[in-house]
Amino acid sequence: MAENYKVIDADVHNEQNDADLVPYLPEPWKSRVARSGVGYSYSGYYSPVGVMRRDSIPPGGGKAGSDPELMIKQLIEPYNVEYAILTGVVYNISTTHDPDFAAAICSAYNDYLIAEWLGKHRAFKGAAAVATQDPQLAAREIDRIGGHPDIVEVIISSAARSPLGQRQYHPIYEAAERNGLPVALHPGAEGAGGATAPTAAGYPTWYIEWHTCLSQMFMAHLVSMVCEGVFEKFPGLKVVLIEGGMAWLPHVMWRLDKNYKALRSQVPWLKKLPSQYIREHCYLTTQPIEEPDNPQHLVDLLNMVDAENMILYSSDYPHWDFDPPSAVLRKLSPDARRKVLYENAKQLYKL
Amino acid sequence: MAENYKVIDADVHNEQNDADLVPYLPEPWKSRVARSGVGYSYSGYYSPVGVMRRDSIPPGGGKAGSDPELMIKQLIEPYNVEYAILTGVVYNISTTHDPDFAAAICSAYNDYLIAEWLGKHRAFKGAAAVATQDPQLAAREIDRIGGHPDIVEVIISSAARSPLGQRQYHPIYEAAERNGLPVALHPGAEGAGGATAPTAAGYPTWYIEWHTCLSQMFMAHLVSMVCEGVFEKFPGLKVVLIEGGMAWLPHVMWRLDKNYKALRSQVPWLKKLPSQYIREHCYLTTQPIEEPDNPQHLVDLLNMVDAENMILYSSDYPHWDFDPPSAVLRKLSPDARRKVLYENAKQLYKL
Repeated sequence: MAENYKVIDADVHNEQNDADLVPYLPEPWKSRVARSGVGYSYSGYYSPVGVMRRDSIPPGGGKAGSDPELMIKQLIEPYNVEYAILTGVVYNISTTHDPDFAAAICSAYNDYLIAEWLGKHRAFKGAAAVATQDPQLAAREIDRIGGHPDIVEVIISSAARSPLGQRQYHPIYEAAERNGLPVALHPGAEGAGGATAPTAAGYPTWYIEWHTCLSQMFMAHLVSMVCEGVFEKFPGLKVVLIEGGMAWLPHVMWRLDKNYKALRSQVPWLKKLPSQYIREHCYLTTQPIEEPDNPQHLVDLLNMVDAENMILYSSDYPHWDFDPPSAVLRKLSPDARRKVLYENAKQLYKL
Repeated sequence: MAENYKVIDADVHNEQNDADLVPYLPEPWKSRVARSGVGYSYSGYYSPVGVMRRDSIPPGGGKAGSDPELMIKQLIEPYNVEYAILTGVVYNISTTHDPDFAAAICSAYNDYLIAEWLGKHRAFKGAAAVATQDPQLAAREIDRIGGHPDIVEVIISSAARSPLGQRQYHPIYEAAERNGLPVALHPGAEGAGGATAPTAAGYPTWYIEWHTCLSQMFMAHLVSMVCEGVFEKFPGLKVVLIEGGMAWLPHVMWRLDKNYKALRSQVPWLKKLPSQYIREHCYLTTQPIEEPDNPQHLVDLLNMVDAENMILYSSDYPHWDFDPPSAVLRKLSPDARRKVLYENAKQLYKL
C-alpha cells in the first residue's frame, strides 16, 4: 500500500478566480482583467464528465482548487503528501494572441502564487508559469522569479505554435538551466487560440478523441527537443512531461533511435542515441495512466525502456480523473515504486 | 528463416512517369499533365539518404520501381513473394487543392495499373487509388474499378484535411465495403499542400522528425474511425495502416479504452470497447518496424494486445528502408510468423 511510501505529487492544480490576479497586474492589463476577465482561449472540446471534481469547489463558492485549506484537507493530509508541486492553470495563456498580455498574466500569477499559496503549507512548492509566445519575455520572467526558494519548476503549455525544441524557444531553456529549474509541459489548451491542431490529423470531433490524442503533442515536442539538440546545448536541463501518458515511450524511443542510425547526418550535434537523451533529461508523470486489463503489462512495457527513473507520481488534483498514490503502478517493485512516488521527484526538484 | 514461409507483401511501390498517365487522362487534364506533369505537393522534408533504392531505377532510366520486369527480378523471385500488393504512389494526390484534378489522376492511374502492371505477373495485385478531397467522387471510382479481379484494395493518403473517421469520408468506406475491399492508408505527403501539419505540434524541422512522427497521423485517424462509429456503420470494412509503425498500438488501445469507460456518453453508437473494434477491423504493416535493442521486447509488446492477427508483412520495395521477409519479427512463434508473412494477408485480400 502506498501508505508505507512517502509521496511527492508532481501535478496539483491550484486555481484562482480572475479577480485574484488583478492586484498583481500593471496597467493596461489591470483594468482589462478587472473588466473582462483573463479570457483564456477555449479548445472547443466539451467534457461530459466535467473537468474538475465537484467537491473541490470551496464551500463559499469560487473555482475548484482555489482554496488552500480545502486542498490541504482533501489532498495533502489524507494522502500524506510531503510536497505538492502547484502547477496552476495559467500556462494555458500561451495560446492567446498578444504576447505582452500573456507575459503579464504569467508574472501576475507567479506573484500571486508566492503571496497566496506557497507560504500556506510546507508541502506547497510552486511551478512558475511562463508564456511561450515571446521566449525572451519568458526568460526574463524566469530570471525574475526563479530564485525564490519555493519555486522549483518552470511550467509552459504543451499547446504551442510549433514544436518546442525549435530554436526560438531556446531562451526559455537557457534561463531555466541558469536557474536550476526543470521545465514542465502541461496540456489543456490543445487546439485553442493560436495553437496547432490537437492531433496530427487535425481537429477531431469529441473530447474523448482530444483527450486520447493529447499524447501526440508530447511525442512531437520530445522528438523535436532531442533532434534540435536542446539537451546538448543545455546539458543541465530537465524536462517534465505532465499528463501526456507513458505507454508510448518505447515506441518513440525505438523509432527515433532507428531513424537516427540512418539519418544522423541531419542532426550532427547529437553525440548519443536519442533514447539516451530522453532517459537522462526527461520525466513523465503518471496521471492519467494507461490501464491495460492486465496491469502487469504496463509495468513490463515501462521496464523495456528502464523507465523507473523517469516517472513521477501525480494526482492531478482536483481534476475528474484524479489517481490516489495507492492506485498507481501497484505492480512495480517496491524499490521502483519508491522512486516513482517519491525519490525521483525529490532528486529532480532538489527537495 | 523466412525462406520456409510463403510470403505476401502488403506494400510494394510501383511507380510511373507522369507521361505514362497521359493516355488514360481526359481533357483538360491530359494536356495539363502532358505539358506540366502531375505536380504532386512536396512536404518540404528532405531525406539525406534519398527515398528510393538506387538499384531499382530501370537500366534505361525512368523512375525507381517503374519497371515490372526489374521488380520481378529484385523482389518477387528472390523472396518467393506469392502476391505483392501494388500500392503505387498516386494516393499522394490527396493533398492537392483541386478535387476534380485529384480524382482524374486517380482514375487514370487505376486504368494504367490494370493495363500496364496487373497482367504482367500472377503475383501482382493492385490497390486502387482514390483521392479524399471529394469522397463522393472517390466512392464513384471505387464502384467503377472495384470489381476488377486483380484489384484487392482501395488506397488513400493518410495526409488529409481532417481525421479520416469523420462523416464526410463515409462514402469512401461505404463503397469499399460494398465492393468487398479493405481501405489502406499510406503516408508520404504529410504536411504537404492542403494536408494538416505532419505532427500534433506542427511542422518539425527535419525529415528524421517528420518520419519518426508519421505514426501520430495513424493514431489520430484510428481513434477518429473508432469514435465516429465507422466500424458499426460499416461492419464489413477492414482498414490497413501502412508504414505507420506498430509499437504504439498498446498505448492507443489502453488509453482509448480507459477514456471510453468514462466518456462513452459522447459515442453512444459504440457497442464494444474501442480496442475490440481495432482488433476486428484493423491491420498494420511491418515496414518500417521499430527495432529495440532486444528484439524480444517488440514481440512481447505486440503480444500484450494479441496483435499477431493484425500484422501484415510489407517490404516497402523500392524504398530506402526495405525490410526482407527474413528480417521481420524473427522472435515471433512460427505460427504467428506464418500469419504475419502470409495468412493474415491471404484472408484479408481473399487470395
